Amino acid sequence: MNVELVNTGSELMLGRVLNTHQQWLCRRLADLGHVVTRQVAIADTGGEIQNAVREALGRADFIITTGGLGPTSDDITRELIAELLGKKLIENQDVLAHIENFFATRNRPRPMKTSVETFVPAGALVFLNRFGTAPGLAMKIDGTQKWLVMLPGPPRELRPMFDEYVVPLLKREFADETFVCRTLRSTGIGESRVQEFVEADLLPLVQRGLGVGYCARPGAVDVRLTAAGTDAATIVRAGEAVVQRILGANIFGLDDEEIENVVVRLLKEHKKTLALAESCTGGNIAHRITNVPGASEIFLGGVVSYANSAKEKFVGVNAKTLAQHGAVSEAVAREMAAGARERFGADFAIAVTGIAGPGGGSAEKPVGTVFLALASAAGVTVEKMSNPWERATFKEVTATQALERLRTRLLST
Amino acid sequence: MNVELVNTGSELMLGRVLNTHQQWLCRRLADLGHVVTRQVAIADTGGEIQNAVREALGRADFIITTGGLGPTSDDITRELIAELLGKKLIENQDVLAHIENFFATRNRPRPMKTSVETFVPAGALVFLNRFGTAPGLAMKIDGTQKWLVMLPGPPRELRPMFDEYVVPLLKREFADETFVCRTLRSTGIGESRVQEFVEADLLPLVQRGLGVGYCARPGAVDVRLTAAGTDAATIVRAGEAVVQRILGANIFGLDDEEIENVVVRLLKEHKKTLALAESCTGGNIAHRITNVPGASEIFLGGVVSYANSAKEKFVGVNAKTLAQHGAVSEAVAREMAAGARERFGADFAIAVTGIAGPGGGSAEKPVGTVFLALASAAGVTVEKMSNPWERATFKEVTATQALERLRTRLLST
Repeated sequence: MNVELVNTGSELMLGRVLNTHQQWLCRRLADLGHVVTRQVAIADTGGEIQNAVREALGRADFIITTGGLGPTSDDITRELIAELLGKKLIENQDVLAHIENFFATRNRPRPMKTSVETFVPAGALVFLNRFGTAPGLAMKIDGTQKWLVMLPGPPRELRPMFDEYVVPLLKREFADETFVCRTLRSTGIGESRVQEFVEADLLPLVQRGLGVGYCARPGAVDVRLTAAGTDAATIVRAGEAVVQRILGANIFGLDDEEIENVVVRLLKEHKKTLALAESCTGGNIAHRITNVPGASEIFLGGVVSYANSAKEKFVGVNAKTLAQHGAVSEAVAREMAAGARERFGADFAIAVTGIAGPGGGSAEKPVGTVFLALASAAGVTVEKMSNPWERATFKEVTATQALERLRTRLLST
Repeated sequence: MNVELVNTGSELMLGRVLNTHQQWLCRRLADLGHVVTRQVAIADTGGEIQNAVREALGRADFIITTGGLGPTSDDITRELIAELLGKKLIENQDVLAHIENFFATRNRPRPMKTSVETFVPAGALVFLNRFGTAPGLAMKIDGTQKWLVMLPGPPRELRPMFDEYVVPLLKREFADETFVCRTLRSTGIGESRVQEFVEADLLPLVQRGLGVGYCARPGAVDVRLTAAGTDAATIVRAGEAVVQRILGANIFGLDDEEIENVVVRLLKEHKKTLALAESCTGGNIAHRITNVPGASEIFLGGVVSYANSAKEKFVGVNAKTLAQHGAVSEAVAREMAAGARERFGADFAIAVTGIAGPGGGSAEKPVGTVFLALASAAGVTVEKMSNPWERATFKEVTATQALERLRTRLLST
């Protein structure tokens, strides 16, 4: 079965928003055994939308469009697709009642513009929108087994609607296909080396149908193993064993696991707590740790000690150390980590100090210079890194390196 | 001129990575006057890549492919496109020297697999990769004025290469087109209301060629004004004046400005400093503030006071207040803000405490309950909000609301 996505929105073509639908929908569909074969984004103009949908209907069995179902004048997907398929738009009373209730419970008058959302193509299934007003729609294409599904653009409306309505529709209309995907996430080795290390040993499995892919990420290389059919799980499991045997110590996580998920899990298993003292990462480590549900069990807190005075006052860095070595130094990183650990009363503390740029670099300490410290009952270790990337990548890579050091430490204790 | 993007990579179709190329390239191209007309993503398999490129060549004048130029076995874009265009692959000595130098300066042996990267289609322009090994490639299609450009997949390789090589190529081969785009970002009004407020007054400009688009974002609605041709700047400027007159107080920023950029700018203009005490946002506000280059001029630091003990110790919340009102309460938010302001010695302090979920809610204080406090020389104000979104959206929306309160305050002082 072929599945295609058509993302509409002039804001996508102008680069004003990030298209997160592609990843989210592809992922969910793959987990259901349906790998998306093509994704297209086009502006929300009449000709473009009708052409893209017509082409997709020529290739695919299941098409999902996103966007263009709202109340404003550039929301025209519903009308265009009704026209393309020769269907009239008919007012739907369930949708009308839902929208009236949506505004009534919020004590707001219903904007007149929302009336267009109550008109749906004749014969369409209606998906009521739990987090907004525009309904989703699904239409079986006359004389075929193909389906066209239209979902609203805002992710917080689309995602629950997909799970609530599209998943049951897929299960009912299309037999489950067996598809298994496993991603092993490694760190510390380059992409071409990773393949050199594992490919010969994976070859017998490739001949049995294993797909192997490599993807370079900031500070990481993902090895992706896939298979379809009745033996899929066995083949992927065998591939995973090969990669684990060869790259074991460098594998930090599986599938979507970010390093922060692994660190939170390991801290819970070890019943240990964590505190942070962040300078150049500016709260990024705390933000990532607290993205993990349940982080409060192990995370006591952190200080973003951006100003030197904050380094002294909140984590007890000595004014002399700052004067003598500068804020970006091994000595300051060491005192930050020790101070955060003691003051929060944590088992572990991570401290980072560095130069994120674009300003602030010098010949001796260029932009990208970082000191990472890890404090534990055994004392403090400090490492110097060089991360000469632009500001956002710098913060991300530095945070990952700091968390990786804690991960390695937790594995060895 | 029609521009299309073809993003290759099975990891995209499996939803294992986010496609950030689409936004970045569309944005850069629009700024150069070339609005992308279609973007397609497909798996990195032979048939898919050749079909997608063949179709794009049928519609567009300038095609950019991303991905598939690296050293591993799934990097096959170069070979497939050479085959499609009937070109031989020839070893390029500049690329070979560049790759040898890349590994020599890093004191690492050159992996054998990188040899494939030195072979380029006959007649192609070569873009040396400053941040990696795989070169970019550009080919003029025989007998046409069309160009096909191939860029490597990793963003930190693709982006500088685009600026260094593709921008000059575009300027040389295609006349500049005048295209103006302005986005006004509003907060506090729903999408349909925004359109109701502005559309009648914009109509005369729409008749002169103004394009108007609306995009609902978390906690914000963007109004996008576009025009092409010689009058483009005048028309868009006139449209901007209309929207500013009607929505003025609700407009927090222009184009890509995030609320944190505006807050940092206003704090600099007022020569005021900021401190934070974050509980449920877990460092997200600090992270966003420190994403702004030069934030260190106004940002003293923050405390991520996740545990109750951290609220007491680092920002001086009274143990009695915690016991009496609970950590998620107006009283605790008030003490957090006042404490952070005093201890950091800042002009302003923001404090947030709430229930991010998925756990921790109760009938009285359901998941999504938040107290936002803003402390200044004039005292502390606290507001209660309800943000019943999933964890990541909750953190993002709550941080935006907190920053919006500070923005409004800074504008009124």
